[in-house]
Amino acid sequence: MATKALWSSIAETLTAEIGAGHYHPGDKLPTEAALAARFGVNRHTVRHALATLAEAGAVHARRGAGVFVTARPTDYRLGRRVRFHQNVLAAGQTPSRRISRVETRPADAEEARGLRLRQGEAVHVVEGVSLADNQPLAAFRSIFPAARFPDLPEVLRAVGSITEALRACGLADYTRLETRLTAQVSDPVLAVALQVKAGAAVLRSVAVNVDGAGVPVELGTTWFAGDRVTLTVGDQA
Amino acid sequence: MATKALWSSIAETLTAEIGAGHYHPGDKLPTEAALAARFGVNRHTVRHALATLAEAGAVHARRGAGVFVTARPTDYRLGRRVRFHQNVLAAGQTPSRRISRVETRPADAEEARGLRLRQGEAVHVVEGVSLADNQPLAAFRSIFPAARFPDLPEVLRAVGSITEALRACGLADYTRLETRLTAQVSDPVLAVALQVKAGAAVLRSVAVNVDGAGVPVELGTTWFAGDRVTLTVGDQA
Repeated sequence: MATKALWSSIAETLTAEIGAGHYHPGDKLPTEAALAARFGVNRHTVRHALATLAEAGAVHARRGAGVFVTARPTDYRLGRRVRFHQNVLAAGQTPSRRISRVETRPADAEEARGLRLRQGEAVHVVEGVSLADNQPLAAFRSIFPAARFPDLPEVLRAVGSITEALRACGLADYTRLETRLTAQVSDPVLAVALQVKAGAAVLRSVAVNVDGAGVPVELGTTWFAGDRVTLTVGDQA
Repeated sequence: MATKALWSSIAETLTAEIGAGHYHPGDKLPTEAALAARFGVNRHTVRHALATLAEAGAVHARRGAGVFVTARPTDYRLGRRVRFHQNVLAAGQTPSRRISRVETRPADAEEARGLRLRQGEAVHVVEGVSLADNQPLAAFRSIFPAARFPDLPEVLRAVGSITEALRACGLADYTRLETRLTAQVSDPVLAVALQVKAGAAVLRSVAVNVDGAGVPVELGTTWFAGDRVTLTVGDQA
């Protein structure tokens, strides 16, 4: 009973400190050893307290990295103009993006259909992870017609932002034609990218962006971590 | 090797028959015993063939009921007027609904906020499952303000359709204010309702419907089976 009260009260203390903003969403908590020293308990007791916080969704462990304060689910608006940076900023979080792959290859049948190309025409493939407050929010794969944007890979490497790179390639604005949403469980590769458990629920969005003349300029697939994002759809789109 | 060729060729035969429309989405396949008799093999070989079809997503087993042809994912449009029956009909499927619970109780804090009531005011709770071609597409829970629709439970028992019941209660039309979407894995209770495996991915939608004056009339939560539905969001909403 004494031990139980101890880890329970440590969990309450940490919960209160997170609530008060001593630790922010995305912050790493002190190590188990540091917490054990602070509270004058053994690491087993600290682990108990952290497990309670994790069950409540307040923190989450990342393999080999530590225990982090979980962000509230980010509201992400699906409208005609979907821009990752603005959406995350609107949720009061700091957006960032890690691009892990930029390559040019022939379009497969599905990509050709989405972008209205012939199968085998060259497309640029851009993959990476979108983060809010340094926590992965979504993994993405964007396919662009290479003939339309021949310099996109180089520009993208220079500027980092897809919207900025498209602008530099002469596309001032684009809008979303349609979004198709479904749920899936994350396979191990996706789980590593999103820093979730394999088998965690993921919300997948497939969308085509078009230019002012209605010509497809991007086929984008996004895998959102199910417990970190709420997609909102409404009239104000 | 001979056995492998046999089950593999049975799987191909059944796949071709499903493709040719001998068995339609939602249809129950013949029993293992019947298939064993038809192909002149033992049930173990049939089971192997069916497992191959299930892995390919062509069929799925329902506990105690048999093996069914899996429907292609149903396109389900999220717009200002979301009507289950029209959406399923538009996908070329036959809609139906099973209502499993109708009860009146005090609103909890979240329901009160969604419907702009005071916590504890009476609400009607309607739960059930929506089916397309007899396959569960979604589980739902709808909350209605009881003071506004005092007769809803009785009417609903009589007419079966929520839209019809609301019309009979004096609500000619309603539109959707906003939809909030996220992904989760199904717990065992939800898995039974949706006839999916526990742990399967589920797309959860929470929406408020309002009358012509913008007053909330329904707070609806829907859990879509992730592999059976594609929600579409677009300009034509």
